[in-house]
Amino acid sequence: MIDQKALDILFNDARTHNGWQDKKVDRALLQQAWDLAVMGPTSANCEPMRVIFVESKDAKARLEPLMAEGNRAKTMEAPVTAIIGQDMEFYEKLPQLFPHADARSWFAGNDELIKATAFRNASLQGAYLILALRSLGLDCGPMSGFDAEGVDREFFAGTAVKTNFMVNIGYGDAAKLFARSPRLAFDEGASIL
Amino acid sequence: MIDQKALDILFNDARTHNGWQDKKVDRALLQQAWDLAVMGPTSANCEPMRVIFVESKDAKARLEPLMAEGNRAKTMEAPVTAIIGQDMEFYEKLPQLFPHADARSWFAGNDELIKATAFRNASLQGAYLILALRSLGLDCGPMSGFDAEGVDREFFAGTAVKTNFMVNIGYGDAAKLFARSPRLAFDEGASIL
Repeated sequence: MIDQKALDILFNDARTHNGWQDKKVDRALLQQAWDLAVMGPTSANCEPMRVIFVESKDAKARLEPLMAEGNRAKTMEAPVTAIIGQDMEFYEKLPQLFPHADARSWFAGNDELIKATAFRNASLQGAYLILALRSLGLDCGPMSGFDAEGVDREFFAGTAVKTNFMVNIGYGDAAKLFARSPRLAFDEGASIL
Repeated sequence: MIDQKALDILFNDARTHNGWQDKKVDRALLQQAWDLAVMGPTSANCEPMRVIFVESKDAKARLEPLMAEGNRAKTMEAPVTAIIGQDMEFYEKLPQLFPHADARSWFAGNDELIKATAFRNASLQGAYLILALRSLGLDCGPMSGFDAEGVDREFFAGTAVKTNFMVNIGYGDAAKLFARSPRLAFDEGASIL
């Protein structure tokens, strides 16, 4: 098992950040976080997550009008904003990712299964990415308040990728944290049968 | 940041297990994993994940006919099988979980938003739970091959909880691992703008 300090970095002390230090994010850390996150399990290793890390002033300016008002200023301030998308044609990569069976045929043409598998597994991978970024010393601010269809048009035009959620990334400014919200106790959300 | 050994336990060396050692899972570890996982971020702290840890012979027998054939034997063998569900009435707990605003009103009556928020955030929380279990020295085997409506009827009757996916939990038998499948490289799934 991992030690208490690592548990605190990943879970107990990590917070959703809304304010950011004026400190750049090394691109190598984004690549390392990707390489860690893709090791996490997905259904038939389908790995539907696609990510655009929005870093430049120009790309940030394209994002700005698409954010919900409450998410706009902090997103513009964040060193990097990751757009987490899901490839609705993820099954086209299964011959590469799951070479020991014809997994493509389990999905192709089954729109309901494609939709659920893409959404579930890209969300799982987004969570792996958040924890991988935290593992590398970065802070995250995940968000789902934005014009998703607008982001699809602006950033994923000509592809089968649909936006799922976003994550601001950088080194958080602890002075701008909200108070920690309460959590559900085990007995409120779980049981053992 | 966390050390290489912890990164290996969480991501690089962790595997999806299909065979299990004959070794019980301490119930206290399941509770610890829950307490870690609920610290992970969710939209408006909505925490829609609900979990039934299926451990007893009787409860396993109720699960058996509902599993896809390829998942049946390993699920019966696993010390614990977690049913990860999402509460479609999660917003009823927002006055408790997000006390500083009337977040309940953002969701109540908006079925499309409820559905997407429950599915996305319960999936995120399921991923946090997988990594929390690994953090505590346990192995996981996540699955989505089962009769979801049947599981809803059998385990979540009379509630608004819908099954999302399942995770076998225990101490894996490395002799029964499949070869590691390839992963998408950064340039195949991500970009920096």
